[in-house]
Amino acid sequence: MTQQKIPVGILGATGVVGQRFIQMLESHPWFEVAWLAASDRSAGQQYGEAVRWRLKTPVPERVRQMPVSNASPDGAPRVIFAALDAGIARELEPQFAAAGCAVVSNSSAFRMHENVPLVVPEVNAEHVALIENQCWRKQSGGYIVTNPNCSAIGLVVALAPLHRKFGIDSIFVTTMQAISGAGYPGVAALDILGNVIPYIAKEEEKMEEETRKLLGRLNAGHVEPAVFSMTAHCNRVAVEDGHTESVSVKLQRKATAEEIIAAFNDFRSTPQQLKLPLAPEQPVMYDDAPDRPQPRFDLDRGNGMTVSVGRLRPCGVLDYKFTVLSHNTIRGAAGAALLNAELLKVQGYLS
Amino acid sequence: MTQQKIPVGILGATGVVGQRFIQMLESHPWFEVAWLAASDRSAGQQYGEAVRWRLKTPVPERVRQMPVSNASPDGAPRVIFAALDAGIARELEPQFAAAGCAVVSNSSAFRMHENVPLVVPEVNAEHVALIENQCWRKQSGGYIVTNPNCSAIGLVVALAPLHRKFGIDSIFVTTMQAISGAGYPGVAALDILGNVIPYIAKEEEKMEEETRKLLGRLNAGHVEPAVFSMTAHCNRVAVEDGHTESVSVKLQRKATAEEIIAAFNDFRSTPQQLKLPLAPEQPVMYDDAPDRPQPRFDLDRGNGMTVSVGRLRPCGVLDYKFTVLSHNTIRGAAGAALLNAELLKVQGYLS
Amino acid sequence: MTQQKIPVGILGATGVVGQRFIQMLESHPWFEVAWLAASDRSAGQQYGEAVRWRLKTPVPERVRQMPVSNASPDGAPRVIFAALDAGIARELEPQFAAAGCAVVSNSSAFRMHENVPLVVPEVNAEHVALIENQCWRKQSGGYIVTNPNCSAIGLVVALAPLHRKFGIDSIFVTTMQAISGAGYPGVAALDILGNVIPYIAKEEEKMEEETRKLLGRLNAGHVEPAVFSMTAHCNRVAVEDGHTESVSVKLQRKATAEEIIAAFNDFRSTPQQLKLPLAPEQPVMYDDAPDRPQPRFDLDRGNGMTVSVGRLRPCGVLDYKFTVLSHNTIRGAAGAALLNAELLKVQGYLS
Amino acid sequence: MTQQKIPVGILGATGVVGQRFIQMLESHPWFEVAWLAASDRSAGQQYGEAVRWRLKTPVPERVRQMPVSNASPDGAPRVIFAALDAGIARELEPQFAAAGCAVVSNSSAFRMHENVPLVVPEVNAEHVALIENQCWRKQSGGYIVTNPNCSAIGLVVALAPLHRKFGIDSIFVTTMQAISGAGYPGVAALDILGNVIPYIAKEEEKMEEETRKLLGRLNAGHVEPAVFSMTAHCNRVAVEDGHTESVSVKLQRKATAEEIIAAFNDFRSTPQQLKLPLAPEQPVMYDDAPDRPQPRFDLDRGNGMTVSVGRLRPCGVLDYKFTVLSHNTIRGAAGAALLNAELLKVQGYLS
Repeated sequence: MTQQKIPVGILGATGVVGQRFIQMLESHPWFEVAWLAASDRSAGQQYGEAVRWRLKTPVPERVRQMPVSNASPDGAPRVIFAALDAGIARELEPQFAAAGCAVVSNSSAFRMHENVPLVVPEVNAEHVALIENQCWRKQSGGYIVTNPNCSAIGLVVALAPLHRKFGIDSIFVTTMQAISGAGYPGVAALDILGNVIPYIAKEEEKMEEETRKLLGRLNAGHVEPAVFSMTAHCNRVAVEDGHTESVSVKLQRKATAEEIIAAFNDFRSTPQQLKLPLAPEQPVMYDDAPDRPQPRFDLDRGNGMTVSVGRLRPCGVLDYKFTVLSHNTIRGAAGAALLNAELLKVQGYLS
Repeated sequence: MTQQKIPVGILGATGVVGQRFIQMLESHPWFEVAWLAASDRSAGQQYGEAVRWRLKTPVPERVRQMPVSNASPDGAPRVIFAALDAGIARELEPQFAAAGCAVVSNSSAFRMHENVPLVVPEVNAEHVALIENQCWRKQSGGYIVTNPNCSAIGLVVALAPLHRKFGIDSIFVTTMQAISGAGYPGVAALDILGNVIPYIAKEEEKMEEETRKLLGRLNAGHVEPAVFSMTAHCNRVAVEDGHTESVSVKLQRKATAEEIIAAFNDFRSTPQQLKLPLAPEQPVMYDDAPDRPQPRFDLDRGNGMTVSVGRLRPCGVLDYKFTVLSHNTIRGAAGAALLNAELLKVQGYLS
Repeated sequence: MTQQKIPVGILGATGVVGQRFIQMLESHPWFEVAWLAASDRSAGQQYGEAVRWRLKTPVPERVRQMPVSNASPDGAPRVIFAALDAGIARELEPQFAAAGCAVVSNSSAFRMHENVPLVVPEVNAEHVALIENQCWRKQSGGYIVTNPNCSAIGLVVALAPLHRKFGIDSIFVTTMQAISGAGYPGVAALDILGNVIPYIAKEEEKMEEETRKLLGRLNAGHVEPAVFSMTAHCNRVAVEDGHTESVSVKLQRKATAEEIIAAFNDFRSTPQQLKLPLAPEQPVMYDDAPDRPQPRFDLDRGNGMTVSVGRLRPCGVLDYKFTVLSHNTIRGAAGAALLNAELLKVQGYLS
Repeated sequence: MTQQKIPVGILGATGVVGQRFIQMLESHPWFEVAWLAASDRSAGQQYGEAVRWRLKTPVPERVRQMPVSNASPDGAPRVIFAALDAGIARELEPQFAAAGCAVVSNSSAFRMHENVPLVVPEVNAEHVALIENQCWRKQSGGYIVTNPNCSAIGLVVALAPLHRKFGIDSIFVTTMQAISGAGYPGVAALDILGNVIPYIAKEEEKMEEETRKLLGRLNAGHVEPAVFSMTAHCNRVAVEDGHTESVSVKLQRKATAEEIIAAFNDFRSTPQQLKLPLAPEQPVMYDDAPDRPQPRFDLDRGNGMTVSVGRLRPCGVLDYKFTVLSHNTIRGAAGAALLNAELLKVQGYLS
C-alpha cells in the first residue's frame, strides 16, 4: 500500500454496490481499499471466493486475495464506505461511527435523520456541517454522511441548476429504473423479462422526502426542507444499468427553453471548483437529439458521473417536461459516496 | 361463407394490426373475412405467402389461401377494416368511403377531422352520429369511423368513469409502450434490447388531442373537446405487448379512494348494455395487489379488452395517481375497431 | 368436489411447477386438486396468500382459498403430484410412497433408481411395470413414478420415432433453455438479461443418462439402457418458456429426409391410442418453415404438449441435424407428470 | 491529419461495422480516417447527419463533420476498409482493387475466391501471399484481402492452437449469435425479444467452408482446405454483442485436458510476435470458472480481440467439448480487418 493514500474499508463489500466501490477505488488517487467486510457467511474467506462478481472488469488482483472480515469496527480503518441493506445499516453504521470512523454511507437507514447530512456535492455541499451535531462526532470523532437513493440523485442533480436559477414550484416524475438498482440477486428474471413492474417498495416515498432535504437550506445548524409539491411514480424495467426519468416541473420564475438548457449545461458547482477526482467536468449535459438520453448509449458520460438530460419541451400541466438519465450504481450509489468522501477530505473531515 | 355473416375486407392485411384483425375475426359471430388487401408488393399472392405472420396462433387455414388484392375499392365488400400507415390511409380511406364502404379505421389520418367520429364505444358511442356530416355518407352512403391511438385508448377507458362521476381537471401520464405498437419490423432489436427510448414520434400530441376529443361532448352535430390540462410523456420499453401508463389526475369534484375504485370496477357502458360480442364484461378492472397491473400477467383480461388499473394512491401534485395497463394491439387497435364495427351494426350503420 | 373425480394432492404447490399443476388440473376431467402442501413457511396459510403466482391465468378461485398443509402424508389423498427440489424429494417422496400414495413426481431424486420408472407415455409406457419392484408397492401399495428433466423430454419425444424406425447410433445436442426451467426466483435478471449462461448445474449429466434410460428396453423386470454415444451442451438464454435444442443424430439404418419427416409427423403412441385427456393429437410436429420452431410462436401447439421440430438437413459429422422445441413447464414438467398419471389410471394403478 | 499516419477510407461507413471502424481507428497509431463512403442516399451529407450511430462512445468530432462521398474510387485513398453487404461488395470491391486500392474487406463476397486471402493473422498470416495471384495486383497494384464471418472467427482462433498441436479430425459447433451481427436495423425486436431464432441465412455454410480455408495450407501459391468433418448449427439470441458457441472436437492426436488448456493459454502467433497495435497479448484465454465465458462479462478481454474459452470437459461423441465467446463486431468484423491491415503494412503491402 502506498503511504500517501488513505486506507479505506468497505462494509457490504460483496454486494453490487460494494463491487462498484472496489472497481472505482482501484484507480483512485486518494483512497485505497485496505479492509473488506461482509456478512458472517463470507467472513474468513478470500474476497475472490466470497464474491459473485457482476461487473465487466475483473476483480482487481490485489483485492481478490484480501480476506473478508467480520462487520465489526475492530481493526477497521478510519474511513468506511457502507453499502448495506437498511436494516443492517441501522445497526452497524452507528457502531462504526461510535468507534471513530467516518462512515460514508449509501444506505437509506440514516438519510432522513436530522443530524445526518444527505449530500450530493454539486447540490448541497454545505449540508456536511450537520456532522457537527452528531453525538458520535462529539465523543469519538466518528460520524455518518449519506448520499441519496439512486432514483433521487439523477433527478436532484438535474433540478439543482433550475432550483438555483428559477426556483422550483412543483415536480412530477415517473421513473423507469434498472434492475441493478435492486442489488443481487435482486429482481428475478421471471419477473422482469419483457415486463414492467409498476412498483418498487418505499421508492416513491424516498424520492419525495430526499429531494426535499437535498434541495433544502441549512439554517442555524439544521436543514429546512425545500417547499414544493412533488409526486413520484416508480417503475422497474428490463434495463441493466441506468435510471430513466420522465420529469415535469413548474418553476417559481418564468424561464425560456434556452435559459433552461443553458442552466443545465453551464451548471458547475463545488466538486468542479474543488477539482475533486471523480467530479465530472459537466454535472448535467443536455442532449439535443430528439430521442435521447437512452441507457444504452448515454450512461457513461463523465465516467458515469454526468447526468444526461434531453427532450425539453413545454408541459401541458406544469411548465416544462424533459427526460433525465443517470447511472444508478455509479452516480447513484458508489460514485455518489466516493464523491462525498472526496468532499469530506478536502474539507478536512477525514484527518 | 355462412350467409348470415357480414363479409368484411381488411386494408393493410399483412401488418401487425391486420394480422390481429384476421385472428380476432376468425371466431367472430357477425363478421367474416372476405377480402384482403395490402401493398402492391403483396397483391396477387396468396395471403399465406405474402404475410410474415407474427402471432402465436397460426394463420387460419381459410385465410391462408385467400388472394391478396390491390388496395382499390373495386370488388371490395361494403365493410372495411383499415390498418394503414397514416400517409397511405389519407389517400386510400376516402376512396373506399366514396365508393360506399363503411371504413372502420385504426389509422390516425382522419381521427381529428371534425366530421369523423373518433370512438371508443364505452366512452363516447354517441359520437358516431358525426358520420351524417360526412360528404361521402351523403353521396354514396360510405363513411369513415376511427378509434384512437393505442396509447390513448387505455388511458381514456380508465378515465371515462372518473370523468363521468367526478369530472377531470388535469391529467399527467407517462407511458411505457410495447414494441408491437410500432408495427413490424418496427423497432430494431439493437435499439430497444436492455434500453428505454424516451420518444415516439407524434405520440404525445396524439394522446393529448385524442383524449380531449374522446371525452368531449356532442353538441349540435359537432364535438366540443373536453377542457382540462394534460401532459403526456411517451417512452418505448422492451415489452412485446401491453402499454403501461403512470397516471396522475386532478378531479373536479372530491372523491375518496373507495369511490374511485368503485367507479373503475362498476363502470359499464353502451357495449355492455348492448351485449356486443367483443365487449368485456368489465371494461375497467381495479387490481388490489401492490405491484400490479403488469404486462406479463394482466394483459389478457377480458380477452385483451379489459383495461387494468392498480396502485391508486394520493398524488403530491394532483389528487390521485395510479397505473393503467391495456393491450395495445387488441383493446388498442384491432379490438377497438371491431368493437366500433359491432356498435355500428347495432346502430344500423352497416346495412 | 364432484364425486367422479379422483382427489389429488400437490407437493411443492407454491413453486413454478406446482402452479402449473394447479392451472392444468383446473379443467382436468379425471383429477381434482384436494390437498396442497408446501414448505413449513407456507403451511397454515391460504394458498392465495402463500403463493407468488407467476402464470398469466389467475389462481383458480377454489384453490385460492384452500389451506396449505404440511408436507406430511397424514390427511393427504392417495394420488400425489410432486414438484420438489431434489434434496427434499429424496426425503419426502418415500414417506408418501410408504404411506400408500401413488407419487407422480417431476423431481430428479429417484429418476435413475433402478426400480423407479422414468416414463414419457409416448416413449416407454411399458416401463411403468417397474413399479412392481418397489418395496413400498409391496408393503402399502404406494409407489413412485417419475418423468424426465425438462431438457431431456423434448429431445426424447423427438427422437422416439427415429429410434423406433431407424435406430439411434449417436446424439449431439446443444440446448438453449428458458429461465422458467430454473424455478422461481431462479435466475437473477442481472445474470441473464442480454446474456447467455453456458452452464446449468448437472443438466448435461441428467440429459445423457435419462435419455438412455427412457429409450432403454424393459427386460425381465429391469430396464437396459439404450446404447449410443451422446453429448449435451446446456445453455441458459433470456427466454421465458420453451427449450430450443440444436440436435444432430446418426441413425443405425439409413433414412431419407422424407422418411425422417414422415416418422416425426406420423408418430402416434400409447397416449394417442388410449386417448388420454392431455395427449396431443400429434406428439411431434415437423414445421416446414426455414426458421422455425421458435419459442415465441410455436410453444403452445397441442396445448403445450406437442414437441415441434424443424430445419432437418444433412449433418457434416453425423447423419442429420434439426431443431427441437418443447414447452419446459408443460410438456417438460407438469404436463409430463399429468400424462403419466393419466396412463397410470388407465393401467389400473390409481385404484 | 498528421503526416505520419496512413490515410484510409471506409466503404459502408454508416453501417454497424463501419461505425466500429471509425471508433477503433480514432486512436489508431498507424491509420487515420480520411475518406468515408456510403450509399447514394447518404452521399453529400456530413457524416454526423448521415449516420444513425449505435455505439456507446460518441462519433469522433473530426469524423462527424467529414463529408460522405459516393462509393467510387475517384478521390479515395489507397487503403480501403470495406464493410458492405455481399451483393454490393461483389460489384464495388473489384472497382477499388482495379483502381489500385488495397481493399481490406469484412464482406463475404470474395472470401472463398481462390486468389483472395481469407486471413486471421493469428491463424494463417502466410495466406496473404495469395494477393500476388490477383489480376488487379498485377495491373494496378490493388488487391482484396478478407477476414472471415463473425461466427467463424471466434471458432477458428480457438481451434488454431489445437489444430497446430494436435490436429483436428471433427468439429461440432452450435452458435448463439448476437443481434449486432445482423447489422442495423437488422433483427426486428418483435422477432427476438424473449426468443431464439434457429436460423441465420447462409451462416452455417459460411462457417463450414471458411473454417476449412482458414485452417488450410498454402501450397504452391494455392490454399488447400483443411480436411475434417464439420457441422454448424447457427442460432440468433437476444444478446447485443458477443457470439457464444458450444463446440465439440475430435483431435488427430490424443491430448489431456491440461495440454489443451495450456495450448489455449500459451498460444501466441504472428500478430503477437510482430507486436501489431491491435494484437491482444493473449489471443485465446481459458477461463476456469464453471459457468464462463459469458457475453455480459467476458467480451472486452484484450479490448475485444481476445477469444475466451471455458468449460473444457470430455465429450461423449467426439473427444472434448468447450464454450467459445468472441466479440462479433470487434474480433469478428472491424477489429479483424484492422488487424489484417496492420499485418499488410508490416509485410510491406500498404506502400
